[in-house]
Amino acid sequence: MEFFQGNIASPLGFSADGLHAGFKKRKMDFGWVVSEVPASVAGVYTTNKVVAPPLIVTRSAIETHREMQAVVVNSGVANSCTGSQGMADAYRMQKQTAEKLKIAPHLVGIASTGVIGDLLPMDKLEKGLEKLVVNGNADDFAKAILTTDTVTKTVAVKDMFGSDEVTMAGVAKGSGMIHPNMATMLAFITCDANISSQTLQLALSQNVETTFNQITIDGDTSTNDMVLVLANGCSGSQEILPGTTAFDQFSDMLSAVMTDLAKKIAKDGEGATKLIEVQVRNAPDSQTARMLAKSVVGSSLVKTAVFGEDPNWGRILAAVGYAGADAAVDKVTISLGHIPVLVDSNPAAFDDEEMQDIMQEDELNITVDLHDGSSHGTAWGCDLSYDYVKINALYRT
Amino acid sequence: MEFFQGNIASPLGFSADGLHAGFKKRKMDFGWVVSEVPASVAGVYTTNKVVAPPLIVTRSAIETHREMQAVVVNSGVANSCTGSQGMADAYRMQKQTAEKLKIAPHLVGIASTGVIGDLLPMDKLEKGLEKLVVNGNADDFAKAILTTDTVTKTVAVKDMFGSDEVTMAGVAKGSGMIHPNMATMLAFITCDANISSQTLQLALSQNVETTFNQITIDGDTSTNDMVLVLANGCSGSQEILPGTTAFDQFSDMLSAVMTDLAKKIAKDGEGATKLIEVQVRNAPDSQTARMLAKSVVGSSLVKTAVFGEDPNWGRILAAVGYAGADAAVDKVTISLGHIPVLVDSNPAAFDDEEMQDIMQEDELNITVDLHDGSSHGTAWGCDLSYDYVKINALYRT
Repeated sequence: MEFFQGNIASPLGFSADGLHAGFKKRKMDFGWVVSEVPASVAGVYTTNKVVAPPLIVTRSAIETHREMQAVVVNSGVANSCTGSQGMADAYRMQKQTAEKLKIAPHLVGIASTGVIGDLLPMDKLEKGLEKLVVNGNADDFAKAILTTDTVTKTVAVKDMFGSDEVTMAGVAKGSGMIHPNMATMLAFITCDANISSQTLQLALSQNVETTFNQITIDGDTSTNDMVLVLANGCSGSQEILPGTTAFDQFSDMLSAVMTDLAKKIAKDGEGATKLIEVQVRNAPDSQTARMLAKSVVGSSLVKTAVFGEDPNWGRILAAVGYAGADAAVDKVTISLGHIPVLVDSNPAAFDDEEMQDIMQEDELNITVDLHDGSSHGTAWGCDLSYDYVKINALYRT
Repeated sequence: MEFFQGNIASPLGFSADGLHAGFKKRKMDFGWVVSEVPASVAGVYTTNKVVAPPLIVTRSAIETHREMQAVVVNSGVANSCTGSQGMADAYRMQKQTAEKLKIAPHLVGIASTGVIGDLLPMDKLEKGLEKLVVNGNADDFAKAILTTDTVTKTVAVKDMFGSDEVTMAGVAKGSGMIHPNMATMLAFITCDANISSQTLQLALSQNVETTFNQITIDGDTSTNDMVLVLANGCSGSQEILPGTTAFDQFSDMLSAVMTDLAKKIAKDGEGATKLIEVQVRNAPDSQTARMLAKSVVGSSLVKTAVFGEDPNWGRILAAVGYAGADAAVDKVTISLGHIPVLVDSNPAAFDDEEMQDIMQEDELNITVDLHDGSSHGTAWGCDLSYDYVKINALYRT
């Protein structure tokens, strides 16, 4: 598997475009991804009980027809908590995109992100649709889906399946409201492999728990967010079937793309100055390991300590303690970078200058070894800074 | 029941004192509460799996002997994650206090709060003990237990039980690490009622869920925190027995004291500029109502919006949605103060100026009516400000 400088349109048969339609003041806010042919599709969605109209429309299309040819996305207005008018607008967004592309409405997925409670300005959407082109600028799509993100998030990989080259690419937006249980962001993944929707869903579902579900920014879960994977078969590769080596290879590829996007989302959390990676080692089982890792990376006290470059391992241990996991906490070893600060639950002396170097880096690796099993789990997050408060106190106004 | 300007020494037979022993640089950091006679005692403790030595020592004394005559507290150093030396120090703290007061060690409860991982400086503790007096300054005790709190938290009430006057008082510290499941703060309540330890525990346990367990500052739960109630019978009142009107009256009194302290803790959360009270109304059951109220008041996005004085009800509804409760979310009415902003899950127009007045007040009342049952629940918290980040990024250094 090889990572390369590509974009969401790198897999064969895909194109994308993005532009400014006026949902936001100045920045790009509208775009689409289009496949030359209907593609297999898989999705995971927010677990929030309040679900926005675009998500309802897209999920319903996928569950009913299991194929998709285009995804159209706007940022700036989430079309969430907008009642029956919001549902009507979401269906119109799907239908008008389908008309423009001359395909069936069920082949169009839609997504919206931004302010909750405002109706989608349909006139802006229509004018935007007039300007979107097939074979446009795929980098503009990556820009158009952002909200408070500071950078675009794109990844591309390719790999040989026997003599067939398969390419996969992903693009995501994240920033705030990123937390547990999936679908708390927008991510779109394209691939030119030949794989059925059912098999694709299997691969997506088995990788969500260890990737997107393991990032947290602020513990809030959005009403809108989803991950869609489209595979159009344009590579001409052999069909990837469950239970084969090719499937495992495909799943690894998807895992790599999802992990990369998850880390990029965590690193660009609202106001973040640092990426935090927490590895929990030697836990009774993987689920416990992941849960503990996420408890540590989600602790406001750990996050502020990391922002302050303070090696406050007490807060890390406290977050392990209150996670509610069924694991021993009396022989815990905690390391910051390569430096142990707690060994078998006893404080360990360390060199202050060496520690300072580690705390000042852009990425902090926290390792928690429970010595209570042999399973591991990782979670990603970011520090909690003044800017997080600033961004969220002033988001609407 | 009458609230009055009293302190922890107002109930008959209690005294308290506080002073600067040197655990902190300048502020008071050491104190005790003493009863003339052994008192009935009840306690609730942190649910963190990592439990600090002082808590282990105190809980064990209470569970074994069910009576207590003094509680000694230091702030600045938590004596948490301090291994076997920490346990030995905690037992010494208990024993030396008992020697000074010439009572049995099991009659002494101990509590520590502050930095995790540092050993208790026993020389300072011993010198502090030499200076503490019985019948000292009870207001100094309220100061001595604080960490990042900005104000002392004290409450006193009295009520007639037949012809007997009973007085109850409480003092608490809170600020950071205040969250779910009890005991995530220090609170000490004294009372001169005549009540057994078992009956006192019953009254404490039945009021914890709706008071201290319903406040949240940052979602973190401490390793040290506990609530202790001492009742010494010095009022000469008749014994309060379970299942009687007197018990209900006593329970209401305790509830009033605990609610008052809980709200004071929430209002003085680290960096807080506003108290937030969330009432969930007409839920399927009380537990669901409380859980939803706490989800809203604990949402970082709601908290930052309140700090920014932004009536962002979308984040409130989102927090209702992701709480994981089994309740309908399709006919929700949300009000900020007296102004409805969402009615039956449809956005409601409101007057911007009137709303601005509400958002600028020191206390914000958020009401969420589910129209899905007849049970209610309340939770308290505070906004998330720049100062929360500042306090926690720089706490150790």
